[in-house]
Amino acid sequence: MAHQIKTKIPNPSLTRLLAIYHLLEQLERENVKSVSSSELGKILGFKPDSIRKDVSYLGEVGNFGGGYEVLKLKDHICGNLGLDRKRRTCVVGLGRLGTAILNYDDLNENGFSVIAGFDSNINKLETITTPVELFPAHEITEVVKKKGIEIGLIAVPARAAQETADRLIDGGIRGIINFSPVAIKAKNNVMIRNLDLLGECMILSTLLAFREKPADQVV
Amino acid sequence: MAHQIKTKIPNPSLTRLLAIYHLLEQLERENVKSVSSSELGKILGFKPDSIRKDVSYLGEVGNFGGGYEVLKLKDHICGNLGLDRKRRTCVVGLGRLGTAILNYDDLNENGFSVIAGFDSNINKLETITTPVELFPAHEITEVVKKKGIEIGLIAVPARAAQETADRLIDGGIRGIINFSPVAIKAKNNVMIRNLDLLGECMILSTLLAFREKPADQVV
Repeated sequence: MAHQIKTKIPNPSLTRLLAIYHLLEQLERENVKSVSSSELGKILGFKPDSIRKDVSYLGEVGNFGGGYEVLKLKDHICGNLGLDRKRRTCVVGLGRLGTAILNYDDLNENGFSVIAGFDSNINKLETITTPVELFPAHEITEVVKKKGIEIGLIAVPARAAQETADRLIDGGIRGIINFSPVAIKAKNNVMIRNLDLLGECMILSTLLAFREKPADQVV
Repeated sequence: MAHQIKTKIPNPSLTRLLAIYHLLEQLERENVKSVSSSELGKILGFKPDSIRKDVSYLGEVGNFGGGYEVLKLKDHICGNLGLDRKRRTCVVGLGRLGTAILNYDDLNENGFSVIAGFDSNINKLETITTPVELFPAHEITEVVKKKGIEIGLIAVPARAAQETADRLIDGGIRGIINFSPVAIKAKNNVMIRNLDLLGECMILSTLLAFREKPADQVV
C-alpha cells in the first residue's frame, strides 16, 4: 500500500488528520460504516474542504458517492502516518503528573510502550507501585541508550527540565514531550513538543479576557 | 495603562507571547535586568522579528537601545493579556491524571484557583486527600453555577467527556480544557482547548516516521 505522497504535511493538517483518526476509531466502535467529509467536518468543527485536502495528502483512498468507508480511511491514515509503529518511551520525574503518565493505559494501548521511569529522588522510587522499571535520574543516558528508548516524556520541575532533556538527548532520544512550563533547547535534531497545562490555562484565560473587554481595548 | 490595542492577536503570536512571558519570569528569577529580541529569539527558537511583532500587538513598551527591560515587558504582557486575573476552576474525573491536576501547584500560583473536584464514583471521593472540595459528578451543573466556576478541566474517560462538558456548560462554564482524547462539541460560545497527551505522542511518532522514510514515500 505504498503511496507516492508528500512527507511535508503541514502541521495543522497533521493535527486534523489525527483528530479525524480518533473520530474514525470512535465511529468504528459505534459500528458506523461510512461517513462523508461534511459529517466529519460538522462533528470536528473543520471545513469539509479542509478534510478532503488533508486526506488527499495521503494519496488516493476509496471514496464512494462523496463518502469514506470508516474502516478503510482509518487504516489509510494509520498506515500513512506510521501510527502503527511501536515506540519505546520513558517518563522522567515521578511526581503526581509523572506517575499519572507512567500508568496512562492509553499510551500502551496505542503503541507507546512505557518501559522506564526516572526520578532524582531514589527514596521515592521505592514507594511507587508500577510494572514499569524505575531508575535514578543519573542513569537516564545509559538506560535510554541500552534500551533503545525513542521518546522521553519530561514531567520534572521547571528548573530540572533542561538538564533532563540533555541527558535524554545524550542517550540518543529522538523526540521529547515536555510537560514543564519552560522552553527546552533542542540539539542533535531531536524533536520537542510542549504540553503545558499551565500554558493552556493561560491562553484560555487570555481569550476569555479578550471577550471581557470592549472591542478596541484589552488592558 | 490602557492601550488602544488589537484584541485579535493571532494564535501563534499569543502562544509566543506566553512563552516570552514564562522566559521573562525565569530571567527575573535569575536577576537579568534587560534582554534583546535577538536574545529572546535565540533561547526560544523564534525569529527576533516575530518577537518584536508579537510584542507590538500589545502597544508601546519602553525599548532602550534595542533591548527590553525584563520586568517592564513581563508586566506589560501580563496586564495586556489579562494574566493577572483570578479564574475559578474545577477538575472533573479524579483518576491519576485528574488527581495530579487537582494538586498541581503551578495552577494555584498563577491565578487558577482549583475550587472543586468531581468524580462519578462517590466511594473514590472519600479516598482522595486534598484541600479541594469534592463532589459527585451529578452535582457539576449546580456547583459550577453556585460557585461561579469559569474554567473546567476534563480528565474523564473518552466515553464520558461529552456528557461532562454538557454538564459544565449547563452550569455556565466559560472555558474547557479537555484532556480526553475525543472531540467535544461546544455550545453557548464556550471555548474548548484540547490537551491530548496521546495525540501529542502520535504527532511526534508521525514526525519521526516521516524522517524514517525516503523523501517521496511515507507508507
